[in-house]
Amino acid sequence: MKSDIEIAQDAKMLPIVEVAKKVGLTEDDLELYGKYKAKLSLDILEKRGKENGKLILVTAINPTPAGEGKSTVTIGLGQALCSIGKNAVIALREPSLGPVFGVKGGAAGGGYAQVVPMEDINLHFTGDMHAITATNNLLSAAIDNHIHQGNDLRIDSRRIVFKRVLDMNDRALRSIVVGMGGKANGFLREDGFTITVASEIMAILCLSNNLMELKERFGKILVAYDLDGKPVYCKDLKVEGAMAMLMKDAIKPNLVQTLDNTPAIIHGGPFANIAHGCNSILATKMAMKLGDYTITEAGFGADLGAEKFFDIKCRYGGLKPDCVVIVATIRALKHHGGVAKDKLNEENVEALSRGVVNLEKQIENIQKFKVPVVVAINKFISDTDAEVEFIKDFCKSKGVEVSLTEVWGKGAEGGVDLAEKVISTMDTKPSKFEVLYEAEKGIAEKIETIAKEIYGADGVDFTDSARKQILEIEKLGLYQVPICVAKTQNSLSDNPKLLGRPTGFRVSVKEVKLSNGAGFIVVLTGTIMTMPGLPKVPAANKMDILEDGKIIGLF
Amino acid sequence: MKSDIEIAQDAKMLPIVEVAKKVGLTEDDLELYGKYKAKLSLDILEKRGKENGKLILVTAINPTPAGEGKSTVTIGLGQALCSIGKNAVIALREPSLGPVFGVKGGAAGGGYAQVVPMEDINLHFTGDMHAITATNNLLSAAIDNHIHQGNDLRIDSRRIVFKRVLDMNDRALRSIVVGMGGKANGFLREDGFTITVASEIMAILCLSNNLMELKERFGKILVAYDLDGKPVYCKDLKVEGAMAMLMKDAIKPNLVQTLDNTPAIIHGGPFANIAHGCNSILATKMAMKLGDYTITEAGFGADLGAEKFFDIKCRYGGLKPDCVVIVATIRALKHHGGVAKDKLNEENVEALSRGVVNLEKQIENIQKFKVPVVVAINKFISDTDAEVEFIKDFCKSKGVEVSLTEVWGKGAEGGVDLAEKVISTMDTKPSKFEVLYEAEKGIAEKIETIAKEIYGADGVDFTDSARKQILEIEKLGLYQVPICVAKTQNSLSDNPKLLGRPTGFRVSVKEVKLSNGAGFIVVLTGTIMTMPGLPKVPAANKMDILEDGKIIGLF
Repeated sequence: MKSDIEIAQDAKMLPIVEVAKKVGLTEDDLELYGKYKAKLSLDILEKRGKENGKLILVTAINPTPAGEGKSTVTIGLGQALCSIGKNAVIALREPSLGPVFGVKGGAAGGGYAQVVPMEDINLHFTGDMHAITATNNLLSAAIDNHIHQGNDLRIDSRRIVFKRVLDMNDRALRSIVVGMGGKANGFLREDGFTITVASEIMAILCLSNNLMELKERFGKILVAYDLDGKPVYCKDLKVEGAMAMLMKDAIKPNLVQTLDNTPAIIHGGPFANIAHGCNSILATKMAMKLGDYTITEAGFGADLGAEKFFDIKCRYGGLKPDCVVIVATIRALKHHGGVAKDKLNEENVEALSRGVVNLEKQIENIQKFKVPVVVAINKFISDTDAEVEFIKDFCKSKGVEVSLTEVWGKGAEGGVDLAEKVISTMDTKPSKFEVLYEAEKGIAEKIETIAKEIYGADGVDFTDSARKQILEIEKLGLYQVPICVAKTQNSLSDNPKLLGRPTGFRVSVKEVKLSNGAGFIVVLTGTIMTMPGLPKVPAANKMDILEDGKIIGLF
Repeated sequence: MKSDIEIAQDAKMLPIVEVAKKVGLTEDDLELYGKYKAKLSLDILEKRGKENGKLILVTAINPTPAGEGKSTVTIGLGQALCSIGKNAVIALREPSLGPVFGVKGGAAGGGYAQVVPMEDINLHFTGDMHAITATNNLLSAAIDNHIHQGNDLRIDSRRIVFKRVLDMNDRALRSIVVGMGGKANGFLREDGFTITVASEIMAILCLSNNLMELKERFGKILVAYDLDGKPVYCKDLKVEGAMAMLMKDAIKPNLVQTLDNTPAIIHGGPFANIAHGCNSILATKMAMKLGDYTITEAGFGADLGAEKFFDIKCRYGGLKPDCVVIVATIRALKHHGGVAKDKLNEENVEALSRGVVNLEKQIENIQKFKVPVVVAINKFISDTDAEVEFIKDFCKSKGVEVSLTEVWGKGAEGGVDLAEKVISTMDTKPSKFEVLYEAEKGIAEKIETIAKEIYGADGVDFTDSARKQILEIEKLGLYQVPICVAKTQNSLSDNPKLLGRPTGFRVSVKEVKLSNGAGFIVVLTGTIMTMPGLPKVPAANKMDILEDGKIIGLF
């Protein structure tokens, strides 16, 4: 059995210019980054007369230790659509460099459903992450410099809410003291680094429709409060122009390809908890402009990923999704039904019937947004006929198509049935997409709508500090934006141990934070780690590059 | 009068593929980064049969507030050589992003002697700086992670000598405390960030002849001492392979062009104080392999820049320089002769005759390395005939050619005379280059040789702690490497106020540090700032990008 990196290194890549030609682009539309990567000129969005293609979101049940394979299905579905002669373009998030050195990182798919060149995609790629890091840290340097140089804005150094970032898993930087060493080094204060993908700069990149909107959003970032408690914005420091300048290339979506040369646009990768976890609006729009079918994905399960995709990304991008694919595995559904990880290989229809309620709720949730659903079951060798029959009957009873996919092991071929069912579903069930709530409502009301409608909660409890934070944002008049919930991905509830389809629970909101530049309110239901650490034996220890440039140990 | 950025934006750039063709390269030798930048495959060094071209170093007198224009002459000389039909390639350092936002950064030349695309070169370029940042910080994360995970190597957290880096001017990060916030965040310790160009990783990039040497040098970085006082190296943490992998593209030199399409290779840019201040060995070798004439430069004046170029870079790269151009201006020499900055426009031959001794000493120094010298006087409108005559007579008396250059205002045309004199000098005076000292000597002896021979000092005084540090390095058996002096650039001595050609002084060595991976011993003669800060009104405040992508305020 070949490893992912071996399969990727064996790929017969086309020059990216050839991949671009497939979707009607010429070399003038590209900025090449080597032979197999290119940035796409934003002019394409205006220049090309073609009607926008259909938009397909791939999401999943609540993730389990059994693994579901959402990215793999996203890529495999794109490969399959191309293999049956359709003009499909994939739109994905770009991976963060930091986690690559930790346990096992990357978001380049797996098996025979991968995007390539995987080493480049997982390392520096076209430099977008580094540009975000620099942009973020320019603003941070400007904040401390402003205080050091006289503090005309009267920034309260105890209330700076904008942190520095690095694209590295480095727990020692989570909580630090800066400005030590006396007068020349500025004023002492507490600070911390988050990982670059958790930066508001990343969220802004992903939610901007053009360069001027990006700059405007940068200007609106709430960086601190002054000594009177009034907000201080990025634009008060006059660096939003320089920040936008630093992002001049990073704003352009990146074109790569799958193992079988399907065009894939990879751009932006915000955290799925404190941000919305989707690739950029510009990447998705570009894919829709170039292809007849765009396949994209969102972080975590549908309760978080799809909800934010609809209520944040589609809202800001004016996007109308045509179909949603919910990925599940029989093993994972049995886990939701209470089966331990080491017993997942044994047939257990009864547990499956207990766990399938998680899938049921996710289907119902998507239907609340009035978008048609197709279920994709990633097939495992341990799945029995009885289990497969059960799932088929279940989906039939819910009125949705189901397809068994084998894209990991078979690539495009393993996804043809899914591709055909997605097309027929879109042909027969037109999407009547609408968002779940109006952004203009009060913060608590919006949170309650999501908690009750999507998570199935009885209600929401707010801590005193969360209530105070809500009041503050409403007092500033900055509340009329969508909600971005940071919640465990493992349960529909905010308790990771409640599998299946929990009922009779309430959601506890611990903290409410405004991301004023990104344009959403982050609602934290627990402690969210925004700077990971490395494990005892980091993956980095096994990585190497040989004399001929061959990379080993990356996956 | 057009500004530098306006001249640069008006440049008629050739596609970089066309520039590469001029020196015999095909598209297969390049990795394109957009239309006007490319990385050069290291295979070119082995594949191409061509004999190496001549190597010309451009250096200067001790810098003054009057400005000398070393980078501009370097670029202008390359342009001039091409304009008279020679195959010339320029090799320069790449600028750091950090200082761009401070007062006025960049190292792309000026006026009509510039390298382009200047915005890209001064912003992210091809991502080399960011790769170095990531590589450095992976090692830093590995150090703190090792301690957190049980500290098998018994690293003494009070004696970690390897710091984190960011490519930003950010004084608040100079001295920090990391690991706050309890057990999950690791152990508390003092740390600090330096700017990326001050990283040993940068020095290693610039002194490695190939990827395997780069990896080996990474492994040899001294990162800390253990609780018994024994050295802990990067390789003990097993991350040198992952670090080399992160540098897989950054190790490749970058090809751009001048305003009139002369090929320019820009690669690596280590600090000129705590490192050696030259572009990479690989870039210089590549330029020599492609061109008949390679023009390169080194940081600061000849006492620091040329000395380190010879004794560190040429030693490690096996390079033999053929000619040295020393850049001076009449204004700067008058400043060395005691004229105040606001009186430099007045004729003063007497002051010039007092100040010319600085040039005299720099000429004599180069001659100690047995390389022929040409003097380039950057012409100013305030220079009088009498002053020009004086300089010409002076150079004649020293037996070296002198040329008046006007490359800033006239581009290639303003450097043709210099180009011709450089060629005739190389034709008539063959270089018999040799280094100043043997690396195998004792540390104090090597320092004394440089101080006496090059700076003109009577001797060297060591602080107690410097003596202790020398003993420690010698005890470890790691002393047989060249010396890298960190000294004021403004004087031949270690006192910035002693202009001209000081005598009767002694050099005070305050600190001695081993850069074991880079392969040199840093000798600090004062406090060296390795993380700059931003001024009261940072240049960033005036920078912007417009809707059409046009950048303003960058210079």
